[in-house]
Amino acid sequence: MKTAVILSGCGVRDGSEIHEAVLAVLSLCEAGHEVSFFAPDKPQSAVINGVTGKACEESRNVLVESARIARGDIRALAALEQELDAFDAVVLPGGFGAATNLCDFGVRGAACEVDAGVADVLKKCRNAGKIMGFMCIAPVIAARLFGNEGVHVTVGVPSSVSAACEKMGAVHEACRYDEACIDRRLRIVSVPAYMDAGDITACYASAKALVRGMEQLVILD
Amino acid sequence: MKTAVILSGCGVRDGSEIHEAVLAVLSLCEAGHEVSFFAPDKPQSAVINGVTGKACEESRNVLVESARIARGDIRALAALEQELDAFDAVVLPGGFGAATNLCDFGVRGAACEVDAGVADVLKKCRNAGKIMGFMCIAPVIAARLFGNEGVHVTVGVPSSVSAACEKMGAVHEACRYDEACIDRRLRIVSVPAYMDAGDITACYASAKALVRGMEQLVILD
Repeated sequence: MKTAVILSGCGVRDGSEIHEAVLAVLSLCEAGHEVSFFAPDKPQSAVINGVTGKACEESRNVLVESARIARGDIRALAALEQELDAFDAVVLPGGFGAATNLCDFGVRGAACEVDAGVADVLKKCRNAGKIMGFMCIAPVIAARLFGNEGVHVTVGVPSSVSAACEKMGAVHEACRYDEACIDRRLRIVSVPAYMDAGDITACYASAKALVRGMEQLVILD
Repeated sequence: MKTAVILSGCGVRDGSEIHEAVLAVLSLCEAGHEVSFFAPDKPQSAVINGVTGKACEESRNVLVESARIARGDIRALAALEQELDAFDAVVLPGGFGAATNLCDFGVRGAACEVDAGVADVLKKCRNAGKIMGFMCIAPVIAARLFGNEGVHVTVGVPSSVSAACEKMGAVHEACRYDEACIDRRLRIVSVPAYMDAGDITACYASAKALVRGMEQLVILD
C-alpha cells in the first residue's frame, strides 16, 4: 500500500504533532506501507514558542518545517494533487497545525474552511474510494468536507471539538485512544491520539489502531 | 528508572534527529522509564532549511526548538546540572545538532570541544556511576570526554566518524543498527540508529537496543 502523509509543520503548537506523525509513520511502515511525505508550500498561520506558548514575530514555511519530520524527503502538496493516482491512502496527523495550516478550525471553529489544496486532494480521495486516516484534531477537516454526507469521525471523548464536528454534519463516535472510528462507506478512519492518549505509549497504540482500521477497510473492500 | 533526555534542537540537519528522539522516548517509556527533557538554553550554531539543506540567516534557540519534540515539557540543561541526583540515567539522541550544538565535532572533528553544560552533566554522571546512552553521532561526545579512559563506543560500521572517535582515544566497536555497544566499566551504551538504520523500523530497533543495553547495566549492577 502506498500512503501519503500530509504534514502541517513541525510541533504540536503550530504544526504537526511530532509524536503522532512519527508514530503514524512507524506504524504504517511496520504494516508494510510505503510512505511519502507532503505538505502545503505556504507560510504557517503562526509561529509559537514551544517553551512559553506565545506567538513569535517570525514567519516560517509549512513545507520547510515539515521537512524536519520527513528528514528532508518531502514534496509540496501540489505534487500529491498531480500524482494522487499512484497512492492508495492518505494520513493526516494532528497537532494544532492541522487546525490552523490545513484548515482554519483553530480560529473559526465549525465555520472553518479547508486549505484549497488539502480539500482538492481529499475530495479526489473520496471520489476515487481511497482510504483516508485522520488523527487527533485532524478529523475536523473530514467533518468540514464530508459532514454533508454524514461522515463518522472521532476526536476522543465528547468535547467542544466533537460538538463542532456534529455542527458541521458529522456523526461523532466517542473513542478511547486505542480505538478507531471506521466509516466504511466513506473509507475514513479516525483515532483520538493525543486528544485522549495520556502518554507516548498510548499515542503509539492510537497510531497502531489507525493503521489496523485502514487495513480493515482493505479487507472489507 | 528516572531518565533525562538531552535534546539539541528539532530536526536532523541542525538539531536532534526527530525519529531517534521520539523512538528513544517511546522505548524508554515502554520499559517503564520516567522521562524528562532538557536542552541547552543557547542559540543554535546554525539553522538549516530542511528542504534545500542550505543554511538560513535566522537565529533559533536550542531549548525553544527542542520543546517541539518535548511537547513543551522541557527545561534548560542548567536545571539538570542542579538536579542530577534525582536521575538514574541520561540519553542523548543523534542528529547533526548533537555534533554542532552539544559539541563542535561537526566543525572540528577529533579536535572538538563539548558544550560546558553538557560536559559538566556527563562528567558528573561518570563520577556517580549513572548510566549514559548515546545514539547515532552523539557517541563522539562520549569519545571526547572519556577517550582518555578508553571508552568503548559505536557509531555503526567503520567510517571517518569512527576513526575520529579512535583518534580521541575511544575504542570503536562496529555495530549493526539493532546492536548496542555496552561499556560496562564506564556504564555507557551506544547504538548506531540512523548511522546504520535504513528506515524508521530499523531506527526503532536501534532505540530498543539502547534501552535493553541500559537495562543490562542495571542487572549487572
